[in-house]
Amino acid sequence: MRNFCLVLRYDGARYRGWQKQGNTDRTIQGRLETLLSRLLDQKVEAAGSGRTDAGVHAMGQTVSFRADTDLSCEELLAALRRYLPEDVGAVSLREADPRFHARLSAKEKTYVYRVWNSDEPCVFARKYVYVFPGALDLDAMRDAAARLCGRHDFSAFCTGKKSGKSAVRTLRAVSVERLDGEVRLTFTGDGFLYNMARILAGTLLEVGRGDRTPESVEEILRGRDRTKAGFTAPAHGLFLWEVRY
Amino acid sequence: MRNFCLVLRYDGARYRGWQKQGNTDRTIQGRLETLLSRLLDQKVEAAGSGRTDAGVHAMGQTVSFRADTDLSCEELLAALRRYLPEDVGAVSLREADPRFHARLSAKEKTYVYRVWNSDEPCVFARKYVYVFPGALDLDAMRDAAARLCGRHDFSAFCTGKKSGKSAVRTLRAVSVERLDGEVRLTFTGDGFLYNMARILAGTLLEVGRGDRTPESVEEILRGRDRTKAGFTAPAHGLFLWEVRY
Repeated sequence: MRNFCLVLRYDGARYRGWQKQGNTDRTIQGRLETLLSRLLDQKVEAAGSGRTDAGVHAMGQTVSFRADTDLSCEELLAALRRYLPEDVGAVSLREADPRFHARLSAKEKTYVYRVWNSDEPCVFARKYVYVFPGALDLDAMRDAAARLCGRHDFSAFCTGKKSGKSAVRTLRAVSVERLDGEVRLTFTGDGFLYNMARILAGTLLEVGRGDRTPESVEEILRGRDRTKAGFTAPAHGLFLWEVRY
Repeated sequence: MRNFCLVLRYDGARYRGWQKQGNTDRTIQGRLETLLSRLLDQKVEAAGSGRTDAGVHAMGQTVSFRADTDLSCEELLAALRRYLPEDVGAVSLREADPRFHARLSAKEKTYVYRVWNSDEPCVFARKYVYVFPGALDLDAMRDAAARLCGRHDFSAFCTGKKSGKSAVRTLRAVSVERLDGEVRLTFTGDGFLYNMARILAGTLLEVGRGDRTPESVEEILRGRDRTKAGFTAPAHGLFLWEVRY
């Protein structure tokens, strides 16, 4: 059995997220496993670096899978590119160390949240940004972002946390950049809880709009209460950007 | 009556082009005139700088219209932004000289044709590029482009030319640029015939692939025969980029 490392790029709009569920074909993992199993004539299970929610996109989702095949990586990559749907792209494929596992080996992930913050129309990127007009105080957002960085219990920034499971994560960097009409939030950390990137984005937007102070995010962290944090920003602005190993 | 100059940006995918036809609501002009007439409570006719074909996009289509209204440009622009569909955006609106007409006053137009020329997947821009894999000789394309520039009879680069109408146009500049996986063709001229930008793009792609020599485009021009030029590149890669007055 050889072990492979695949990087996928996808538009999440048509899918119920990464993780397969029931007998639906509307998940990325489900579509990929069906295709790999057919191409390689064996049952293939694909492990993603983590779930992406319904509607969330990926610039680089890393996937590992084992298979018994004589195909070269070039041949298999070409077949994937040919048969994957147009909203799922195979960026790269390489053979990996036998112990490599896309989820268990991941060291760090980066998510990008794209906000359209302009009165000008956003026509061509409209499916990939969250439209949030009105003045945004980016300095206040950066101040709040700095206070969120570090090793904390992020229970307040998680939907449906399971008791007994640790919510301690290290958020290594958060950047807030303006690119013309767009405000781009970039989150890098060693792991992200369910909805965490979207709640961080919603909370930073509330700070930017002046509904919260930058200092208040420290209280939110301490309180560990989801209802005290900001709204969950919509899925279609979020991209799993990169996974590092 | 005041005279207005509006710049629109649109994703042409859902539309049968700019120009209204019959009683269909599936044209940009039709949608805009209906909205303006409703907002201003009078029959408004909107003149575009020119037609865009079904499926062609616009980064900046210029439109002029006359109306009797006390609304400021800011108010009218805000109303357009609010009520236009999400795939049609109002970029700017200003009051124009009474003699200004978007089509008759146009001095120069720029079209951009986007080609995706890479084995890497093009996931997020897939609706706005024409996927054309394989090696492309950009130097040959630039050589051909230079031979197309100037004042010529472009009959060979026009679909369904009406006899008696002049097909002489001046193509001022054609550029061929690579931007990572994308090859971008930019055409600037004093006017474009029906399908001209798309046939120019198709012909340059045939030169890039080695199916034609750069020199051969001079014969095509001289022959004035549509069947001798290249294929009509698909609508969804083409953008009316800018109109100058």
